[in-house]
Amino acid sequence: MSRIAYVNGQYVLHGSASVHIEDRGYQFADGVYEVAAVHDGQLVDEAGHLDRLEYSLSELEIDWPVSPAALKVIMRQVVRRNGVRDGIVYVQVTRGVAPRNHAYPADVPSALVVTSRRQKPLDRAVAEQGVSVITIPDIRWKRLDIKSVSLLPNVIGKQKAALAGAYEAWMYDNEDRVNEGTSSNAWIITADGELVTRHADHAILNGITRRAVLKIAEEHGLRLSERAFTREEARNAREAFVTSTTSFVRPVVRIDDTVIGNGHAGELSMQLLDHYYAHVDSADALS
Amino acid sequence: MSRIAYVNGQYVLHGSASVHIEDRGYQFADGVYEVAAVHDGQLVDEAGHLDRLEYSLSELEIDWPVSPAALKVIMRQVVRRNGVRDGIVYVQVTRGVAPRNHAYPADVPSALVVTSRRQKPLDRAVAEQGVSVITIPDIRWKRLDIKSVSLLPNVIGKQKAALAGAYEAWMYDNEDRVNEGTSSNAWIITADGELVTRHADHAILNGITRRAVLKIAEEHGLRLSERAFTREEARNAREAFVTSTTSFVRPVVRIDDTVIGNGHAGELSMQLLDHYYAHVDSADALS
Repeated sequence: MSRIAYVNGQYVLHGSASVHIEDRGYQFADGVYEVAAVHDGQLVDEAGHLDRLEYSLSELEIDWPVSPAALKVIMRQVVRRNGVRDGIVYVQVTRGVAPRNHAYPADVPSALVVTSRRQKPLDRAVAEQGVSVITIPDIRWKRLDIKSVSLLPNVIGKQKAALAGAYEAWMYDNEDRVNEGTSSNAWIITADGELVTRHADHAILNGITRRAVLKIAEEHGLRLSERAFTREEARNAREAFVTSTTSFVRPVVRIDDTVIGNGHAGELSMQLLDHYYAHVDSADALS
Repeated sequence: MSRIAYVNGQYVLHGSASVHIEDRGYQFADGVYEVAAVHDGQLVDEAGHLDRLEYSLSELEIDWPVSPAALKVIMRQVVRRNGVRDGIVYVQVTRGVAPRNHAYPADVPSALVVTSRRQKPLDRAVAEQGVSVITIPDIRWKRLDIKSVSLLPNVIGKQKAALAGAYEAWMYDNEDRVNEGTSSNAWIITADGELVTRHADHAILNGITRRAVLKIAEEHGLRLSERAFTREEARNAREAFVTSTTSFVRPVVRIDDTVIGNGHAGELSMQLLDHYYAHVDSADALS
């Protein structure tokens, strides 16, 4: 089965799927994206992803390349044509193709790329082993609420994590507060049992998995605080974890050189993962 | 004459010149670029552009896609095949094509795109009319010394300028100091005749035209200071101008609602433009 990608109106072989060299995504990072999980052939939290895509496009004044309803059909087609039961679907929208000039071009249709690939969902036993994260200064721009493809500092950070043998890099601001990971949100459970993740403003991306876990925490009556936390607090946390479309709820057992808790996946983190698995399986999440 | 672009080893028709959808330039803004002026069919300050490209690539640990010597040949070919006497040559290098994953891929060749287009050099009479600039908060990342394609905040800023009928937007930091324009460096001449442009560190791009004008200023014994200046200082300046590959030395006669000097292109600014014209014509600049 050959991989198929959707590019600006056509389903094409992934290997030869291309965009013009003057697509503004290529020359200016002038575009946005979404990554949604596919479970059992269905999209997880599709409504949340489409809402956020609407937000990103709106903030950048990029038109929808097709209607949201049409995009839903295209995403399903790409998932189906690639025979993906479990994996991800990737959607990228850019401001389109125009002769290079910084200001927005007039009357240029936005461009759409959709791909899908198989990927095993996080295995519970693997999650239980925990991962380590490093911390690095946050050098990104100031509109992280927009899910743009302007990801260069993120890839630099992720590479630093990879070189350190870590799963993720948490980025902290000038006041030593952890914003988020390079491709995931950061969470801690304090020594006295408070679940903490940074409030969503322009300094972080409001993750779809983050939102799902917040809802789960509320439903289960956990003590919850959406606020900034420092690296010091994180090092002293009882538990820590990251959330993202592909990381689900992934326990963190080491932050830089500090072992978190007893060095094993935290109990509450694993409970949240179990609830998240249930969420992914639910009619509420699947569409 | 059809426009020709160079893309990863081939000279192709510009209209169908494309890169793969998983080129990291498209998905992650994981690439760098240069824009050099072409004058009389020759590249202006080519050595400076290649040095800076070397710096950008090195900082991001991206390999040269071809040797610098080969790139010189390619740039000349693209200029010649497009019949460009006066205009620009655009060079973009990305980390290459790989399945989407933030960390750097192993053993993937970097990708190279080179284009060229005709563009009339700045006309002296047009320059003399002066341009206006607006000021906006600098929301960019913290490694502006790298000439990356992570330009989303720059295009947002340039669009704001365009909507305001201005030529450029100057970006100021948290302490009200002007860093630079969205695609040019910012300069003022203070009331007591000091030529000022921000020192080059991680907060600005060290422009090739900026460097040429600094050299010209030194050669002519001007009082020169490479330091940050505030918006307040800029509003009170006697003269102001911007520099870039395509802007040359372009006098600024209005900053937001403040008329600069007497509202006409400054005398010293025009002298610097004349010296810069001479530089562009010199054997020193042309290769």
